[in-house]
Amino acid sequence: MSTFNASKGLNEKGAFFESRMAAWIGDPPKNAPNGMWESMVYSLQVGGKRLRPVLCISSAELFGLHPDEVMPMAMALEMVHTASLIHDDLPAMDDDNLRRGKPTNHVVYGEAMAILAGDALLCHAFEYPMTHLQLPYDRVVKAMARFAKSLGPSGMCGGQVLDMEGVESPEAISRLKTGELIRASIVTGAILAGATDEEQRSLDLYGEALGIAFQIADDILDVIGTEEELGKSIGKDQDQGKNTFVSVYGLDGARKLLGDFTDLAVSHLSSFGNKASFLVSLARYLEQRTK
Amino acid sequence: MSTFNASKGLNEKGAFFESRMAAWIGDPPKNAPNGMWESMVYSLQVGGKRLRPVLCISSAELFGLHPDEVMPMAMALEMVHTASLIHDDLPAMDDDNLRRGKPTNHVVYGEAMAILAGDALLCHAFEYPMTHLQLPYDRVVKAMARFAKSLGPSGMCGGQVLDMEGVESPEAISRLKTGELIRASIVTGAILAGATDEEQRSLDLYGEALGIAFQIADDILDVIGTEEELGKSIGKDQDQGKNTFVSVYGLDGARKLLGDFTDLAVSHLSSFGNKASFLVSLARYLEQRTK
Repeated sequence: MSTFNASKGLNEKGAFFESRMAAWIGDPPKNAPNGMWESMVYSLQVGGKRLRPVLCISSAELFGLHPDEVMPMAMALEMVHTASLIHDDLPAMDDDNLRRGKPTNHVVYGEAMAILAGDALLCHAFEYPMTHLQLPYDRVVKAMARFAKSLGPSGMCGGQVLDMEGVESPEAISRLKTGELIRASIVTGAILAGATDEEQRSLDLYGEALGIAFQIADDILDVIGTEEELGKSIGKDQDQGKNTFVSVYGLDGARKLLGDFTDLAVSHLSSFGNKASFLVSLARYLEQRTK
Repeated sequence: MSTFNASKGLNEKGAFFESRMAAWIGDPPKNAPNGMWESMVYSLQVGGKRLRPVLCISSAELFGLHPDEVMPMAMALEMVHTASLIHDDLPAMDDDNLRRGKPTNHVVYGEAMAILAGDALLCHAFEYPMTHLQLPYDRVVKAMARFAKSLGPSGMCGGQVLDMEGVESPEAISRLKTGELIRASIVTGAILAGATDEEQRSLDLYGEALGIAFQIADDILDVIGTEEELGKSIGKDQDQGKNTFVSVYGLDGARKLLGDFTDLAVSHLSSFGNKASFLVSLARYLEQRTK
């Protein structure tokens, strides 16, 4: 599959996910304050690649599950990713006014609501799969445990702290900050679909390398991308003196690493043969992305 | 059991919980940044009544479980309660510098860390029980689903928004803001212990009334308590023009309601007979608390 097809596949799977999300948005939890739901939905709808849900769906499909069977998990992955963006953009954190070409959550709804909308998305991301997944209980517990682990002190939140402190290497930072949730996106799909430990391990290694590659590409785009194309402020990492792959290895060094980690990711899919062609081409596509 | 004994029981159960928490604190998750763990632990250790863990443990004991068998759930309840206090105290929210007689999290660690420590506590509260509870998977899923529901847009976070908006009645606000988590504390203990639907329902109704009573007592203490005894700023609700039970019903009206909701809570325990004597006297003790 060419990278053109991967882009098409990503878009199609992303669009499928969005159609399901739209139905979900129209059906708010009973008793949820309108203003809060609006703020949560605003940031979910701002868009993006929907990479995490697509990874989860694609991984589950490898083992014969229909996308709808893992949709509650896919929704949860996008909810926590969105929560992390809302909190990252806060004045006390990265202080960003623009995300995907639109005003950030706190600019529209105020800081207090943005903090609470992020918290509510985190919490709802646990409720929704546990009440909606129609799969064996043991798989649900194992998938949700893995999901939770990718987020807390030794996952996404911990990575955000490392990023703030700027002492660790960009590999160490990105492993937690971006990598853990990308790994969990792929592995939870496999767990829910009943993959063997061996199969889960291969996909985990794919996700581990893909997550780092994803962050390298992000760091490169922060330097060479255009604000228009990315829909967010660029050059901020540099201004804030953050430890990025480009600041540590230079642009050429970062590009070389991006290629290496993408190759590594793809190598872990070999045992799946043609069935994994979408995940292979997705890695190649993300390597060459311009936004 | 007299209220003196309930106080003693609460202290004993709270102390047992604290001893288990101390062991947990000494064993941080692998890869968690030290600074983040320190900030999470700081707020967990500031103390308090440990009411939510005690409710969960006591409810599970009603059906024959040992406290250690539900300890991961009890820990999770205290983690999310602590997370909510850290975020509530932020400058963009209630802007409090003092909590239980100590500087609040953001005063010690800065706003960014306080936001992330709260997020990490929320996420870790889901990981920890799902990886540590040694009980049947179906009970774990049902308990964790109920726990998650008590926190999100139709639970604690939603209640915080209602409190901020100040449009709804104090009953409606307290049902979500304080009540849902207190209900979940009791009900998750019962679910994990394999209680019948009928038994869960009685405890849920006890928790519902107890949660409202707890908030009424809080509102009364915000007016008549002393800063020294409470260890937090008092009179703030009044200054911020919030809709409290005292501002709406007056001090005498609020006291009458406190008695009514406590009676209601106790009435739902009748089917348990003497086995529930601790939960009965706990409700009476909380009615008369001065801090």
